[in-house]
Amino acid sequence: MTSTSLNETVGAELFFKCENFQRTGSFKLRGAMNTTLQLSDDVQTVVTHSSGNHGAALALAARNCEKKAVVVVPKGARPEKRRAIERLGAEIVDCEEALVDRETVLAQVMASQPDAAFVPPYDHRDIIAGQGTAAFELVEEVGDLEQLWVPVGGGGLAAGTTIVANGQLDVVCAEPELARDAHDSLTTGELQPAMPPRTVADGLRTALGKLNFEILRRSKVAVVLVDDEAILTAMRLIWNRLKIVVEPSAAVCLAAMLLDTKRVAARAGVILSGGNVSPPHN
Amino acid sequence: MTSTSLNETVGAELFFKCENFQRTGSFKLRGAMNTTLQLSDDVQTVVTHSSGNHGAALALAARNCEKKAVVVVPKGARPEKRRAIERLGAEIVDCEEALVDRETVLAQVMASQPDAAFVPPYDHRDIIAGQGTAAFELVEEVGDLEQLWVPVGGGGLAAGTTIVANGQLDVVCAEPELARDAHDSLTTGELQPAMPPRTVADGLRTALGKLNFEILRRSKVAVVLVDDEAILTAMRLIWNRLKIVVEPSAAVCLAAMLLDTKRVAARAGVILSGGNVSPPHN
Repeated sequence: MTSTSLNETVGAELFFKCENFQRTGSFKLRGAMNTTLQLSDDVQTVVTHSSGNHGAALALAARNCEKKAVVVVPKGARPEKRRAIERLGAEIVDCEEALVDRETVLAQVMASQPDAAFVPPYDHRDIIAGQGTAAFELVEEVGDLEQLWVPVGGGGLAAGTTIVANGQLDVVCAEPELARDAHDSLTTGELQPAMPPRTVADGLRTALGKLNFEILRRSKVAVVLVDDEAILTAMRLIWNRLKIVVEPSAAVCLAAMLLDTKRVAARAGVILSGGNVSPPHN
Repeated sequence: MTSTSLNETVGAELFFKCENFQRTGSFKLRGAMNTTLQLSDDVQTVVTHSSGNHGAALALAARNCEKKAVVVVPKGARPEKRRAIERLGAEIVDCEEALVDRETVLAQVMASQPDAAFVPPYDHRDIIAGQGTAAFELVEEVGDLEQLWVPVGGGGLAAGTTIVANGQLDVVCAEPELARDAHDSLTTGELQPAMPPRTVADGLRTALGKLNFEILRRSKVAVVLVDDEAILTAMRLIWNRLKIVVEPSAAVCLAAMLLDTKRVAARAGVILSGGNVSPPHN
């Protein structure tokens, strides 16, 4: 998707990859589907923990592959996310918020299902390869792109995009200031822990994965930080000008571009990662 | 655009024509452009009154045709609509809210511009023909449609759609209960005045045009009424499921379909008329 008016605002030709239109409303289906397809037929059940888009994606991937999905969901997860996972036929197992609780419950589920495989949300090569197909499609479709902008949270989408770029295209990651562990990990050269989950870009609160970190570090990807106000401004701009619904996490790239328009190449691809946000109740 | 999940909800195959993606954010550009293109080269200026989408559409049509546009805008118009008209290069002349004031100011503008033509928002054959191209494109693209759903306000889009359907496709109009003059005009056989401008579907508050009324009456088009709550529910459903931004006026058709799903044909086209709504400030 393109927008004459956003091109004028940024001073470049922008090509948006609309993963908000992807089934389950985000790019996450790509990795979940790819990973599930690689499993042997003996695996009858896929298991994950997720408060968000990965859970719904795995539920649909499992349904498409005629497997069962079990998703461990923290009690504080947004009700519409929970309903989406259920509607897609997955079994939900509740857990408390803390990571240690999630992991304990996950281990219990895995122990009780001998034919099950754990499908992690981002720190896995099949997930990364799957997420990379978004950038692959964009590059194939548009042609002559010089640059790719991608949000970074756990790093599945960012690492996959970097692999697709393969040193031929400039990749720029955008990350919320309030979840700057990817930025700090790449600056210090050591994987940093996640920050408290405060940014409005809820899809980007997770810690950068180990494998993802290695891939991003090797390709010397830059990470631009943006504050939450800039993210919301960019989100509203996308809603206003492109007339599409994106979640805050999908708006970090445009926010970063607006912060420093000189950094934007003449023909730049932008991955709009998802659209799972509650609409206004006006 | 299609949505598996909305198809399941309604129990039919729905094909959405996304006029929210149209330049200036609504179908209005079609009629404004067609009408401006029919004008003789002697006409250097196009004039209209509009608090909404028609003003921006005419501004862009004039710019494309290298003419000047003057738009009479009531003082209470939404600031973003006013800015959109200005950004497109039109001259804005302020007036008070009442229709009589608009018409007085419009007459003054016309008197002061001897080379000007008035381009009305809907009650004009070239406008109707232009708006009809939305349905024409949908029918061409999808094929085998049995039914077309269209919102009715002034009636330009509805009349144009009816002409395109040409008795071969069933046309159903949807209208807000709070602006039911089209419904009542067609039921009584006499053109009814506009109701007080209260419905949340602000694009549909205008009175049905005379020519538009004649066209709709001749083709015996049905009008389904929906209340404002149903319109907002349908709007949120479109945002949630299609991940696109539509204004309340564009959601009346889905609201009407949800009210009586049995009325919906197996393959139905739905014209989503526009997307000019303020995004949430959360």
